[in-house]
Amino acid sequence: MKAEIITIGDEILIGQVIDTNSAFLATELNKLGIAVVQITSVSDKKDSISGALDGASTRAQLVLITGGLGPTSDDITKKTLADYFNTTLVINEQALEQIRLLLQPRGLAINDLNIKQAELPANSEMLINRSGTAQGMWFVKNNIQFISLPGVPYEMKGIFMDEIVPRLRQRFQLPAMKHITVLTHGVSESAMAKIIYNWESALPDNMKLAYLPSPGLLRLRLTGTAPKDMNTLSATMDEEMHKLKLLIAPHIYGYDEDTLEKVVGDLLIKNKLTVAVAESCTGGTIGSMITSVPGSSSYFKGGVIAYSNEIKTLMLNVNQNSLLRFGAVSREVCEEMATGVRNYFSTDMAVAVSGIAGPAGGSPEKPVGTTWIAVAGNNRVVSDVFKLGEHRGRNIQKAAVSALFMLMKEIEQMT
Amino acid sequence: MKAEIITIGDEILIGQVIDTNSAFLATELNKLGIAVVQITSVSDKKDSISGALDGASTRAQLVLITGGLGPTSDDITKKTLADYFNTTLVINEQALEQIRLLLQPRGLAINDLNIKQAELPANSEMLINRSGTAQGMWFVKNNIQFISLPGVPYEMKGIFMDEIVPRLRQRFQLPAMKHITVLTHGVSESAMAKIIYNWESALPDNMKLAYLPSPGLLRLRLTGTAPKDMNTLSATMDEEMHKLKLLIAPHIYGYDEDTLEKVVGDLLIKNKLTVAVAESCTGGTIGSMITSVPGSSSYFKGGVIAYSNEIKTLMLNVNQNSLLRFGAVSREVCEEMATGVRNYFSTDMAVAVSGIAGPAGGSPEKPVGTTWIAVAGNNRVVSDVFKLGEHRGRNIQKAAVSALFMLMKEIEQMT
Repeated sequence: MKAEIITIGDEILIGQVIDTNSAFLATELNKLGIAVVQITSVSDKKDSISGALDGASTRAQLVLITGGLGPTSDDITKKTLADYFNTTLVINEQALEQIRLLLQPRGLAINDLNIKQAELPANSEMLINRSGTAQGMWFVKNNIQFISLPGVPYEMKGIFMDEIVPRLRQRFQLPAMKHITVLTHGVSESAMAKIIYNWESALPDNMKLAYLPSPGLLRLRLTGTAPKDMNTLSATMDEEMHKLKLLIAPHIYGYDEDTLEKVVGDLLIKNKLTVAVAESCTGGTIGSMITSVPGSSSYFKGGVIAYSNEIKTLMLNVNQNSLLRFGAVSREVCEEMATGVRNYFSTDMAVAVSGIAGPAGGSPEKPVGTTWIAVAGNNRVVSDVFKLGEHRGRNIQKAAVSALFMLMKEIEQMT
Repeated sequence: MKAEIITIGDEILIGQVIDTNSAFLATELNKLGIAVVQITSVSDKKDSISGALDGASTRAQLVLITGGLGPTSDDITKKTLADYFNTTLVINEQALEQIRLLLQPRGLAINDLNIKQAELPANSEMLINRSGTAQGMWFVKNNIQFISLPGVPYEMKGIFMDEIVPRLRQRFQLPAMKHITVLTHGVSESAMAKIIYNWESALPDNMKLAYLPSPGLLRLRLTGTAPKDMNTLSATMDEEMHKLKLLIAPHIYGYDEDTLEKVVGDLLIKNKLTVAVAESCTGGTIGSMITSVPGSSSYFKGGVIAYSNEIKTLMLNVNQNSLLRFGAVSREVCEEMATGVRNYFSTDMAVAVSGIAGPAGGSPEKPVGTTWIAVAGNNRVVSDVFKLGEHRGRNIQKAAVSALFMLMKEIEQMT
């Protein structure tokens, strides 16, 4: 099965929005064994949309359309689709009910625009949107599946995962395909390529490795395909994964959909430990990552964002002399921050970060990107210095993931 | 003049890489008054590339192609272009010289792959690449301009800005085109559509409005085009913007490339004020947003992430009775948090958030999404409650932007 993705909306064509929806859909379709042959972005204009649909019909059996379903006047997708599939828009009672359910808890009543959103093409199958008022639609024409989704990323993702993936699996025979993703920290893409060169070169023909870097992290995705036998494929892939793990074990923090913050949270729960943070250059990013995990209040007590030296002294009990002698970005101060917040918050563990995120604040001895991280536990404090880079946003991100990784390693070592 | 962008390469079609090149080109072309009518991503296959070129020829007078110019075997773009434009590849002496110049300072000699890269289609105009070995190419066929660029972002950008922009300005009469984006908070897309309905309906034909929502924020982008006179266009757009502002002034926090955190930072600097945060459900997100702005250390002293009640009492001096009587998510506790952190950190301003991000923790009186925000200043503390929604990540995001918006309003009111 071949697929094509069409995104509708001028915001992409004027460069105001980067098309991340297509990347998400392409990733998920590939996981299902459906190859994406083209991605097209067109304007909110009837002719442009129809033209893109015509083109896609000649190349694909599945066409996913995102965007253009908002209630406002620049959104003409629904009318265009109704015309394209020779039907009319009618009030869909299920859609109306769905919108009501969504608005009720927010204390909102249905307005005229919402009612317009409940109008769907008569011959389309409705796909429930649990996070927004624009429902998804599924059409079939000349044996080609056309699916229209809203452009708001979380709404699009919700409908795709909850409503579309199960229907695709059920309605079509998709090839046996398996992905295993290994999540690593602390090795660059080119360094990783060297470490695993022999293993990667010897992979069987039906397996392929992809490198997916993000600031501070590197995911390795192994994809295997087989005509039909999933069991043999799984066994062979497990063997290859075993060999890979032997090469890079110390850098691995998880697999597949794991996140570093979730892995750390699970470890804390498992070992009945609590944690606090003391953040200087990361400014709250570590706390924000930890608390992005539902249920994190059972192990995260909180933290101090110590952006100024006086707060480091006042709240974290950092020694004034350490600040004067070694500077805020130093092993001594960072370790004192970790110990200070651990004592103050009475937690089992604490993690502290002090660095120069940039663009200003660097010096020849401590250039922009210099970052100290310390982890305090029951018996000891460990710390390390990182040379991150020039870019403020990426430095903060890398510092935060490095801190969580060090925390994970320290818990593993303790227990 | 209408343009189309074609990106070549499987990495986009499998979702491995997000297509940022197209967003860059679209932004820059729009600034020149060239409308982008379609963006297409296709595979490294001859038929896919030719098909995309055929399609673009029917819609655009300028076709920009990125990617597929690397020296390795999966890059067949150059051969395909030579065939498409009925020519052959020949060694281009200028290209060879350019590659030599580039490799020399790195101490590298020209190898076979480099020589292959110096082969260009005989009828193309070479566009110098100062950062890489793959040169750009400009073709003309049936009065349509086709330009091929490498996919490495900084190489593509360099050639575009240095070689293409001057030629476009010189060779074509480009129309006047202008975008103004108004950034708002606190009004949903459908509510906004109602408020500005009359104004939007009465916009002149050469102006168009787009709604660009993100959690807690809504951007309105007004685009105007005029045959050639930029001054008249600017004046008319300014008039329309003036009318729009009268309708929605209280919700506006900035324009164009502004961010809420930058606007708040600038206001704090301008009024010589400092700020601290006390974050419960947002877990550090507000601090993280504030410190994403370079130079924020001049006004941000830090904060307390008070994820547990004991920390609220211990560090923020929240009254134990308030916690027992009203609960952590209440006006009383949130205001005490703001006052507490302001006193502790000795800042002019403080902002505090206490809410139920979900998915657990809700009750009939305080459902998931209930969030109190308080801002403490010199003379008073203001607070408000928000009913956000069901989704943890978005609740945190919305709470953080609402807190920054309230802080902005309070500073404006004070000064």
